[in-house]
Order: sequence, then C-alpha cells, then structure tokens
Amino acid sequence: MKKIPTKTYLREEELPKCWYNMKAVMKEQHEPFLNPKTLEPATEEELSKVFCSELVKQELNETDEYIPIPEEIQDFYKMFRPSPLIRAYCLEKELDTPAEIYYKFEGNNTSGSHKLNSAAAQVYYAKKEGLTSLTTETGAGQWGTALAMASVYYGIDLTVFMVKCSAEQKPHRKAVMQTYGANVVPSPSETTEVGRKILEEFPGTGGSLGCAISEAIEKSQKTPNCKYVLGSVLDHVSLHQSVIGLEAKTVLDKYGVTPDVIIGCAGGGSNLAGLIAPFVKDKINGTKNYRLVAVEPASCPSLTKGQYKYDYGDTGRTTPLMRMYSLGSGFMPAATHAGGLRFHGMSPVLSKLYHDGYIEAIAVQQTEVFDAAVRFARCEGILPAPESSHAIKVAIDEALKAKESGEKKVILFNLSGTGYFDMMSYTKFLENKMVDYVPTEEDLQKGFNSFLDIPQNK
Amino acid sequence: MKKIPTKTYLREEELPKCWYNMKAVMKEQHEPFLNPKTLEPATEEELSKVFCSELVKQELNETDEYIPIPEEIQDFYKMFRPSPLIRAYCLEKELDTPAEIYYKFEGNNTSGSHKLNSAAAQVYYAKKEGLTSLTTETGAGQWGTALAMASVYYGIDLTVFMVKCSAEQKPHRKAVMQTYGANVVPSPSETTEVGRKILEEFPGTGGSLGCAISEAIEKSQKTPNCKYVLGSVLDHVSLHQSVIGLEAKTVLDKYGVTPDVIIGCAGGGSNLAGLIAPFVKDKINGTKNYRLVAVEPASCPSLTKGQYKYDYGDTGRTTPLMRMYSLGSGFMPAATHAGGLRFHGMSPVLSKLYHDGYIEAIAVQQTEVFDAAVRFARCEGILPAPESSHAIKVAIDEALKAKESGEKKVILFNLSGTGYFDMMSYTKFLENKMVDYVPTEEDLQKGFNSFLDIPQNK
Repeated sequence: MKKIPTKTYLREEELPKCWYNMKAVMKEQHEPFLNPKTLEPATEEELSKVFCSELVKQELNETDEYIPIPEEIQDFYKMFRPSPLIRAYCLEKELDTPAEIYYKFEGNNTSGSHKLNSAAAQVYYAKKEGLTSLTTETGAGQWGTALAMASVYYGIDLTVFMVKCSAEQKPHRKAVMQTYGANVVPSPSETTEVGRKILEEFPGTGGSLGCAISEAIEKSQKTPNCKYVLGSVLDHVSLHQSVIGLEAKTVLDKYGVTPDVIIGCAGGGSNLAGLIAPFVKDKINGTKNYRLVAVEPASCPSLTKGQYKYDYGDTGRTTPLMRMYSLGSGFMPAATHAGGLRFHGMSPVLSKLYHDGYIEAIAVQQTEVFDAAVRFARCEGILPAPESSHAIKVAIDEALKAKESGEKKVILFNLSGTGYFDMMSYTKFLENKMVDYVPTEEDLQKGFNSFLDIPQNK
Repeated sequence: MKKIPTKTYLREEELPKCWYNMKAVMKEQHEPFLNPKTLEPATEEELSKVFCSELVKQELNETDEYIPIPEEIQDFYKMFRPSPLIRAYCLEKELDTPAEIYYKFEGNNTSGSHKLNSAAAQVYYAKKEGLTSLTTETGAGQWGTALAMASVYYGIDLTVFMVKCSAEQKPHRKAVMQTYGANVVPSPSETTEVGRKILEEFPGTGGSLGCAISEAIEKSQKTPNCKYVLGSVLDHVSLHQSVIGLEAKTVLDKYGVTPDVIIGCAGGGSNLAGLIAPFVKDKINGTKNYRLVAVEPASCPSLTKGQYKYDYGDTGRTTPLMRMYSLGSGFMPAATHAGGLRFHGMSPVLSKLYHDGYIEAIAVQQTEVFDAAVRFARCEGILPAPESSHAIKVAIDEALKAKESGEKKVILFNLSGTGYFDMMSYTKFLENKMVDYVPTEEDLQKGFNSFLDIPQNK
C-alpha cells in the first residue's frame, strides 16, 4: 500500500464551496432561543437587532444541508486555507501504538486558530448589510485577532473589548490586533455606561468576559451602522467552522481512511462542531459507528457536570436564553485555570447531540493537558494551544488504549490553534507551578443557583 | 489562461531530494577561511575541531552541484515542509500594479523562520558523528528555537547562550526553547570562564552576540562529545537553505513563470542565499537576466557601506577569518535598531557574488520597513518578521515602479519568518516611537578600525 503523506493540502479547486449545516440532518432540533423578557421564542426580527440579518438566517436554518459559501469569502479563505491534514507519524512512533493518528491543523494562520473561519464570514455579511463598524469582546485574544484580520480585509471598523487582566497579561496579543487596525479597549472601560457602573462598584477590577460582552453590545447599539458579533457558541459560527470537517473528510476519503474516534476540545464548542459536521449524518443514521468525543477542562466541565437548561450566554445576562449544557451563567472557573475553554455553557447544537447520545464528553485536568502538549510539541514540531491540547491528551490516551488492546484504531482530532501567546502558562507548567482543580459541590451549586427559575421545555 | 492558485504546496514526492550547491557553478570561489593565528588557510582538520565533520566537508565542497539530502533529514523536512509559494493577489490589488508578486513563506513552522531548514540538517550530522550535545548562541531567538526543535527530535542535548537583554525582553521566546527541552543560559553567565571574566569587567551588562558565541564555543570545547553550531553566514548553512529556492523554482517552472527580480533580506545572508541558489547558474551563464537583490538595514549596512576584507565572524574574535563584506567586527548597530539583521558581516559566498556584480544591494530604514510590514500584514493576512519585512519593502517598491512604467514585472521574494515575538517593535512603530538611524562616518570608522592589519588577498 502506498504510504500516506505526512501532510496533505487540498488543491485550491478542491476547497469546500458550501458549508455543512448538520441541523438539516438531525432528527430533532434543539429548543429555540427565548427572549428573556417574554420567555417566548426569539423571532428573526428580534435577533436581527443584535446580529447581522444573514447570520440570523443561518442561525435559524434547519433545512438546508449545504449552504453556499459566497465567492468573496472563498477568496478570503484562500489566503489562509487549505489547512493541512497531518498524519502524526512521529507521535505514533513515540507512543509505539498500532493506531493511526490524524489531525487537522487549524492554527496555521496569523490569528493562530480556527476562529478566522467564522470571522471571514461574519465580517463579509456585516459589510454586505451596509454596516460600517462592529464590536466584539475577547478573552485570550484569538477571536479578537481573527476579527481584526477580517475587518481590515473588508474595510470595516472594529472595537474589541478585551478583558482587562488579559490585555495586561498579553500585551502582545493586543498589539497584533492593533497592527490589524482594531481599536482595543481594556474592559471594564469608561467608554460605556455599563463599564463605568462596574468600575464604580469594583474599582481596580480585572474585568470578565461577561462584562466585556455587555460593553460590546452597548457600544454596538449606540453606534450607527454597527452590530455585535460573537466567535463561538451560536449555530452560525459552528456552520462556518464546518470547513474544518469538510476538508478533513475529503482528504481521508481520498485515502480510503475511516476514523473510529473523532476528537475535539470544547469551550463554546465551535471547533468541535466544525470538525464533526460532515460525519454527523452517518452517525445519526447508524451507517457509521464513529465515536465523537468532546474534551473539556475538569475545572469548567459544562457537559460532564452541567445541567441541560435554558441559560444566558453571558455572565452579564444580556443575551437571549439558550437551552444548553451549562454550569450556570454565575459559574466562575478557578483563577488558577490556565488552559482556556472557560465558558460556562456549551453550543446548543452540540448540547443537543450530547443529550441525544451521539457525542461523548471527557473532562481532563490541566497538568495532564500541558504534559500532552509538551510531548506533542517535541515530536510533531508544532507548539499547540492549551485549548487544543485537551484534544491531544485524549487522542494520546486513545492511542495508548489501542496499544494495550492491539487494535489498529484510526484517530482524528482537531489541532485548533497554536500556543505562541500562551508561553506564560507553558512556563508555569515547566516550572511545576501549575495546579489542578475540580469545582467543589459548593462551587457547582453556586453556578446552578444562577439558573433562571423558568419552565425548561418550551 | 488558467489562474494561478493563491497558494501552491508541492506534493511530498516533489520535495527536493538534494541541496543545491551554487559554489559548483561559480566561476570564481571566495577566498578560503584563514586560521587567525597562522593566517594560513584553515584546514578541514582544524575546522572539524569546532564544527561537525560532515558540515565542514559541505563547507569546503566547491565541486558537487547537487548534494543528496539524507532520508532522515527529508523525513524531518516533511514535518514542516513544503512551505507554500504564494501569489500576492491582495497586495497586487492594494498596490494597483501590473506586476505579479510571488513570495515563498518560510515562517509557517513553530520556529517561526527558515532557520529550521539548517537546524534539521546540522543536528542530524552531529548525532551521526556520535555527539551527545551541542551549544549555540541566539540573539532574537529564531535560531535557538529552530535548533531546540531539531535537538529534541534527534535526542541530543542543547545549551543555548541567549544574549541576556534579549532573554529578558523576550521571555516567551526563551520559554519556547525550554518547552523543546533546551537549556537556555542568559549570556554573559557564570557558567564559563569568558562569561565570568566579562561579568567581572562589566557588572550588569546586557550581553552581546559576540560574547554569547564565545561562551558557546568555550562550553562546547570543555564538554565531552559536544560541538558548536551556527545558524547563518557559513556556506553549509546557505546550502541547507537552498530548499527554499528549489521549491520556489519548481512551482514557478510548473506555471511557466520566470521572475525578473528576486529579493531577500540579508543579515548573515543564509535566507537570501537559499532563495537564489537555483537561479544563480543561469545568472552567471548569462542565460537569464534575473536581478538578484539583497536588502539590508540602513543601520547595519554591510554590503552597501562595508569593505570586502578578511574579518572575524564574531565580535569576540574567536572564529576563523573570512573574506566578506564587513563593517568590522567592532561595529555595533544603534541600540534603537529594532529590525533585526544586526550582523556586522555578510556570508562569504554572497559577498563574492556581490563583489563580482551578480547581486545588487539596497539599504532601507526601519520605519519604512515596518510601514511595509503593516501594509503587507493587513492585506496578505500574515504578520511578517521585521527581518523579512526588509524584502517586502523592496518588493513593494519594485511593484510601484512597475506601475509607473506600466511593465508587467514578475517579482519573487522570500518571506523568511513571522513576527509573533516582535510585537514590542510593532507597538513602538504603531505608537510613532520608532526612529531611523544611519551610522555616521565616525561610527563606520570605528568599525573599520577593528579590521586586522593583514594582507587582504590570500
């Protein structure tokens, strides 16, 4: 048999021309978003007040399996795609496993992660709608960077509210966004009403993602021709990320390879959703028996410890309500947590697939994640993002299980990003200063207490 | 005519199986290295006391046009190569030029630059020779990172002497090397005799590349089974870098494209030498009239302001003497210089080609370089290293000249690295705090005074 190349890049003409909408093949849909004031399903019109109209249409689309990618977005994709599908020969050798390990590498662009797949689409639609500016929030900075790149490409102004402590800890990430022309505002700031209020109440606070979201939404609503955009969780974001899975499947099909286990890390869930998108149909139909695995941090375990409830998407409680696996919008991961994926909830579409038994979830500790990251970096030559390393950890575990059982398993995972801006966390790990953490019953209860007391099956 | 793809990756089976040794097609060779004690040509035996024997053989090889790449190195190359050849459609559009712009992108790996091409080879030969450890020095950190990656891959210990002020300013670069298992020692250190001596003389000094080289050489000579390796300047390094040009030429030939101008930045010179390697033969023979352009910083202008003399490769004056364009080993670029390429001399083989009129040289100011870098980043979606941005600046100038004259020029340049660890310099530029600098006659004279008073045509 011909040896499969270490890296395979699709040719430009083989790149996906459509996104894959897995909702079109799901037997049941997730519950609708609710307007938190009326507790009635949020209408297209209501959602369009906050989000771009075309994105709302995609968000609500449950029928079209394939949604064409506009040519302008395809052109943008050509700037940083295709991303390679890599056969991890060196890792296989290091583990001495009979398993075949493949990974899709999405960190091979200046934003450093898969986030650019959705940013490219979202800014295009904003521009097409006649908007002249956008706002968003960013924590670690990957989404903010991706959006800055897309905004400068399409010629649209961008304000990024960056969690203040993150902006201070990661001045270089901030500088990349500024290089791409973004206006980066450490949050909480004096530029919004909600920011000023928080600063008055908590002088000297380092901020939070919830607060940054609230500031970004306020600013978008007070600025003419401006809307707010979001980098994960929502279905249209997962839709855009389907290029990950589509490219991976095209390459695997070319070599006649069928994965047994498909693994992705899951914070908001978009990279996992994108990876599994084109595999879900066969899984649901029972044609293929893929194992689809979500890996989350033990310190923020929304799938494995959360509840399937209607909840806000932000700690500031300004978004529509979504039914999802959640630790409660009031849940806060430990300050010692360095591994990313800090979101209290999980993508509604992934939550539904998990609830219906199509997806498994595994929670892992951050020291074992960084251990896997270093091991991977040393043999595969790529420095992974802490987030992506959750998937690496479980891929390694699966390969070692295959070694024990002697099975020739085929493992596929998504390497969603690189860790160049996470060296403080790597150093902490290398110096043995990183500690693990699992929320106590009390921590969890505190989060659960923040759930709204509403009927949970609308 | 079929549109050329934005990015072209060679297939694995198309990757170079041999390096290209341009010395084999040069009509005259550069002068031999001299032993500084005897002023006699340094013998293979003498050189092998410092460098790996196989590398010395390559260094002195003036006859073999193609030198086979051992399969083990080819396997390593597959981890991070091929690098794409990119058609800069967006930059062409932004400049509104009739010119076609192509660039080879060598920063697409965790070391962030082309340096890994030579590190992969050098560590392989060290291992094959039975060495168990290596030493080197690093300034900005690209070479140290590349060597750390190669060392952990082949299972060899590495000590990197990193210029102390750089280690302090770039703790993240240091952390990447440590993640790859390297022992990083800020230089000057207490671990060597020369380090202790310098610390005694200049307590609190931030160190220099020259001092780091001296410490690395001392340590290599006092450690059993250990040698010293170098990331630029020498001919064997340029040889390994020929994969850049070979891949680029294979792609261009495929599309029937012939470049008119071939541009690379030049510090020690290895990335430019690698890019032009397979084009030099036709240039020398007069078969093709390529313009080959070296771009250097105006603050460290070895080709445009230097003298073609025998000089030491390091400020510490420990290396063999090389005849090269040099500002003198005593020359120091201004402290305000942020754009890299700080080496006082230039690769002997490039120096010879320049001396014989095959290569042009242009010196550019750092603010115009960063201006080009930001412009490029915003339309091509890649954040370039300051060093590589010297080539971008001149490529843009050439494209604008073509616009003026209406010529359909074909421009090829090497994007040798990414700027993720250079955000402090980008921020300085964006905040208008960057200043330009040209050495005064006095500065230059101070450098020239450090030349040895020896006959210059051995």
